[in-house]
Amino acid sequence: MQANIAAAKAALAHLDVEEKDVAIKAASRDFFWYSPVLKNRLDHVTADFVVRPKDEAEVIEILKVCYEHDVPVTTRGAGTGNYGQAMPLEGGCVMHLRHMDKVREIHPGRVICEPGVLLKDVDAATREHSGQELRMFSSTWATATIGGFIAGGSGGVGSCTWGALRDLGNIIRLRVVTMEAEPRIVEFTGEELARVSHAYGTNGIITEVEMPLAPAYDWVEMFVTFHDFMDAARFSEDLANQDGILIKLATVFEAPIAHDYFQRVKPHVQPGTNLVGLMVAPHSMDGFLTFAGRRPEATIIYRNDDHNWERGPGPVFEYGWNHTTLRALKVDPSITYLQVRYGHPNSLKLVEKMRDDFSPEVLQHLEVMRESGRVIFAGLSLVKFTTEERLNEIIKLHEDAGAMIFNPHRYTLEEGGRQTVDDRQLNFKKESDPKGLLNPGKMISWDDPDWAFNEMYAHPRLQPLTKA
Amino acid sequence: MQANIAAAKAALAHLDVEEKDVAIKAASRDFFWYSPVLKNRLDHVTADFVVRPKDEAEVIEILKVCYEHDVPVTTRGAGTGNYGQAMPLEGGCVMHLRHMDKVREIHPGRVICEPGVLLKDVDAATREHSGQELRMFSSTWATATIGGFIAGGSGGVGSCTWGALRDLGNIIRLRVVTMEAEPRIVEFTGEELARVSHAYGTNGIITEVEMPLAPAYDWVEMFVTFHDFMDAARFSEDLANQDGILIKLATVFEAPIAHDYFQRVKPHVQPGTNLVGLMVAPHSMDGFLTFAGRRPEATIIYRNDDHNWERGPGPVFEYGWNHTTLRALKVDPSITYLQVRYGHPNSLKLVEKMRDDFSPEVLQHLEVMRESGRVIFAGLSLVKFTTEERLNEIIKLHEDAGAMIFNPHRYTLEEGGRQTVDDRQLNFKKESDPKGLLNPGKMISWDDPDWAFNEMYAHPRLQPLTKA
Repeated sequence: MQANIAAAKAALAHLDVEEKDVAIKAASRDFFWYSPVLKNRLDHVTADFVVRPKDEAEVIEILKVCYEHDVPVTTRGAGTGNYGQAMPLEGGCVMHLRHMDKVREIHPGRVICEPGVLLKDVDAATREHSGQELRMFSSTWATATIGGFIAGGSGGVGSCTWGALRDLGNIIRLRVVTMEAEPRIVEFTGEELARVSHAYGTNGIITEVEMPLAPAYDWVEMFVTFHDFMDAARFSEDLANQDGILIKLATVFEAPIAHDYFQRVKPHVQPGTNLVGLMVAPHSMDGFLTFAGRRPEATIIYRNDDHNWERGPGPVFEYGWNHTTLRALKVDPSITYLQVRYGHPNSLKLVEKMRDDFSPEVLQHLEVMRESGRVIFAGLSLVKFTTEERLNEIIKLHEDAGAMIFNPHRYTLEEGGRQTVDDRQLNFKKESDPKGLLNPGKMISWDDPDWAFNEMYAHPRLQPLTKA
Repeated sequence: MQANIAAAKAALAHLDVEEKDVAIKAASRDFFWYSPVLKNRLDHVTADFVVRPKDEAEVIEILKVCYEHDVPVTTRGAGTGNYGQAMPLEGGCVMHLRHMDKVREIHPGRVICEPGVLLKDVDAATREHSGQELRMFSSTWATATIGGFIAGGSGGVGSCTWGALRDLGNIIRLRVVTMEAEPRIVEFTGEELARVSHAYGTNGIITEVEMPLAPAYDWVEMFVTFHDFMDAARFSEDLANQDGILIKLATVFEAPIAHDYFQRVKPHVQPGTNLVGLMVAPHSMDGFLTFAGRRPEATIIYRNDDHNWERGPGPVFEYGWNHTTLRALKVDPSITYLQVRYGHPNSLKLVEKMRDDFSPEVLQHLEVMRESGRVIFAGLSLVKFTTEERLNEIIKLHEDAGAMIFNPHRYTLEEGGRQTVDDRQLNFKKESDPKGLLNPGKMISWDDPDWAFNEMYAHPRLQPLTKA
């Protein structure tokens, strides 16, 4: 099977096709470079051409043409993901959905929109319409698309209340186009949603989404400091367990993250300051201040609605989730990260052990989440990178201790997830993408069902390894 | 200290004073008769007169006049409470707040209103204004007042998501008038709220409340049946632990409650049917149906938005909380109830043990609640009453097993609560009601600080005991 790029391009020439090499290169990259491991392997990856459909009919046309000419199609939104999910490993076509940015319908508790609309634009529309907003969003809210969030994200700001994106009820409906001789349109709800959500566009292209909404409030954003790291972590856990206090974010940063990496926070903290970032509903502030008042170890140093900082820090959520890593990277390019699950019921004990074992080589950055009704922590630990061997050792020691790792130094669905084959996604790919042209190389179970997960899946198009 | 009733009545004659004996008797009663124990003791209780202030200024005038003439004042809303909290034990004045029914302000996430407005009228106003509603309400939503709910309630429909009324954030502000020579107006927030919330009006009169709001949805109300009781309980617990599925009610009824006591449900169930009543947000229905589809033991027999019942059952929440007892009482006057706390983490195990030990003498009726971030059960068990001795024995056996009882067969704050003195309430009463005229006999720690809680507090005005 040999891709006929020229024929596909010619057939699609009447669409918005990008021809310039620089622009093609730019549209072939996501934020994989948060990982030095992926940076080494994927830096050279580029598509042959980029096309930007304006509606579902054009998506169908592109998939049909590329199918006919055996051209791989990697679909992307804003390309803000970190697992290399939007990298077109086998070249071919990158389909960029940024023109599909219409918010179609808004109802009490739900919104229907196209995949290419930015998260912030969904929120702007739903807030304007009826004082509503998305339940959760990535810290890249200002630049990321809702389709990219669903196809590659797992949760974010809001997950402290609503759980993960994959939890029942957090996606209502997805409309998907298949890549066959005659592409089909399918509507997924209920159990079927798991086929294509968080599938990196490997088995269908999302052309419409229906998502639940929560009320939009003028969230009070705060920074709270602690001398002791575990005090900060306990404060966040206890706050999230206050059923009557509505929060949207509770993030814990071990010292010296705030001092060393948060430039606008630095004048207000010491190197030894542990920091908690919060978003609290305004009508929960009386409850929150009562809660905080019972904990003399907590000092509120910033409120977005009442402060005297000469330069405000901007949105507090842009310090959390993977913006923490981004801020650290900007100051110290040797920083990378891990994605850790500290589950119920021993989440804090495990956090404490990992910190004892690895700080300061690994600094704790925790996000409060809910999982099966319980407060847990997602760790996006900052790692001072030395070698791949050491990174793998740190990962192994976490796993041995019971801290599950979603490895952000891998570019396949399975390796970045739970290291098991998802039959629902694989089986749907067999139906929807018989030629295996959708985002090739990202689903190991399609390429090599017997892969043992002992080492990184070695797709033939990876950059030959250079010694670190 | 001798009350000068005649002088007080004369001084208040220009207000809306009720003179008719029948009406005074009616306004001197609440729903204490759910308890055969309280029915025996309190049936004779009546006020000397009833006055209905139209605003805070009149409340102040009434309290000032009654203070001057040493007249007890028992304040009431609709009188739908079950602990005898609105019964004027020492006669005197009943102050009925039903004219103070104004909704003053509505903002995103909060409402400010007078205490005498009905819960359903708060909801009607906030829904009309901006699609909002109270976070929680008692099953007497249609008839009870918000002030009565705060002064005597503990939680209700909505507590499966928001926890109890006393939890931080579930009351924002209370404005209170004291009973002194010159009554003072005080505003309580934060830690101070606990002074007067759930204090039965023993230490101040609430004249304005500020409460948090949640979004109002067209809740899908359902009945779901199970052959096995524990399946029904687990289903409800698991559902409440689904972070992405928004619910407002999950109630479990052991067989044969549904068949024997729910007349409109009876044609659709068997004597052995265990029932779950639910309220689920419409945009969570895809998630809910997926959840339910994984549990073949669950059968949805009724949806308020899609059913073919000849006679609809009315609001599903009017089967839950203490409406369950009311419905059972109407069919079998020998039924009474207990209020039980099945705490974390062994709530279901304890439920199972109590059922094994007592069914069918005690039938399980469970309400899903949240407490400190965890799903627990509040039991409003139906008890087939025989004697007070047996009732006390059942209570003791529950407590011995670790199931805390909030005894609804007692009329004092302490006995109906945690059987300990609440210093915050007592200390404020010392300030706010130096003559002890507010709802006398309801705060043991005021009357008799050394009371040992071995038996029912024996206020001198109780009816002399008759043998059962």
